[in-house]
Amino acid sequence: MASDTRERLIRTTSRLLRQQGYAATGLNQIVAEAGAPKGSMYFHFPGGKEELAAAALAQFAGRITVAMTDDLARSTASEAIGRFFDSYVTHMTRTEFVEGCAIAAVALDAASSHELLFEATSRAIRTWVDLLTDALVAEGRAAVEAHDLATLVIAAIEGTIVMAKGQRSAEPIVAARDALVRLVATDG
Amino acid sequence: MASDTRERLIRTTSRLLRQQGYAATGLNQIVAEAGAPKGSMYFHFPGGKEELAAAALAQFAGRITVAMTDDLARSTASEAIGRFFDSYVTHMTRTEFVEGCAIAAVALDAASSHELLFEATSRAIRTWVDLLTDALVAEGRAAVEAHDLATLVIAAIEGTIVMAKGQRSAEPIVAARDALVRLVATDG
Repeated sequence: MASDTRERLIRTTSRLLRQQGYAATGLNQIVAEAGAPKGSMYFHFPGGKEELAAAALAQFAGRITVAMTDDLARSTASEAIGRFFDSYVTHMTRTEFVEGCAIAAVALDAASSHELLFEATSRAIRTWVDLLTDALVAEGRAAVEAHDLATLVIAAIEGTIVMAKGQRSAEPIVAARDALVRLVATDG
Repeated sequence: MASDTRERLIRTTSRLLRQQGYAATGLNQIVAEAGAPKGSMYFHFPGGKEELAAAALAQFAGRITVAMTDDLARSTASEAIGRFFDSYVTHMTRTEFVEGCAIAAVALDAASSHELLFEATSRAIRTWVDLLTDALVAEGRAAVEAHDLATLVIAAIEGTIVMAKGQRSAEPIVAARDALVRLVATDG
């Protein structure tokens, strides 16, 4: 049961970070929405909110990494890139444009001032860019070109999440995906 | 003097939103850093923090819009796009990767739950995309293609700001700019 509580705390924190970032997410809200006794938070995370948020970011980033790895293994990089965008269209529409990317939200509101959170955002972004770079290199692109393009793709996903939340619409995700897939296709 | 205080409150709020978003930015911090008496805040902004933040977002977005308009007027869209990225490399390096985009920060932490802030982020993003779309159409691109590409460019800028803050590095901005400028150039 103890590990159930730990898992619920992490899942709830991850969702709240996606919705509103780190500063707006208070411990009282986390334990209330996780249905966990307050003492359990400090039992599982003696370092408090920052340690819990870092664990939530690591789990969130890991899930995205697994999904990306699976997608890249079963199709071309270009097809997989299209599907990364599509999965965010689905997720953000389903959550009425409330749940974005936990890494992006914390990068903007807390990574500058919290070392554990900076380490978590930095590691996630580097992992995603490297993963996509490797897939593009495996398809024959030069290393620098592949890295730059992978960076652009991750930036476009994070940026369209900003736009989708800021406009409460999936349209920017679809538009940027169409532009990017078309450019990459003609670029060969 | 009264309007000086109002302007200082707006400028300070704009900077704090760029650094840490809406939730982390408290009224006490704003009035302290603006060197303004607390009463002056409610005199100028009877609606409190949300009204002040909406005014700061409108001013921030307006400054970006003016800079984009100037850049687009004196060079090709492709050159201007490169310069948008370069200006963020300069700004973020100078502020040690602390000051990002106020619109992005508020889109992720508060636009879902605050109507005035949603209106401000939505208007800013739409204005920037439309401005760039018009410039691309003027250079001969079809309307839908221009809109999609403009959306990708704004997404890439917002997304690289997320990455630059999350990694404390300007490298993602440079890499994404290089990929995008190269793709747009070969796309003709």
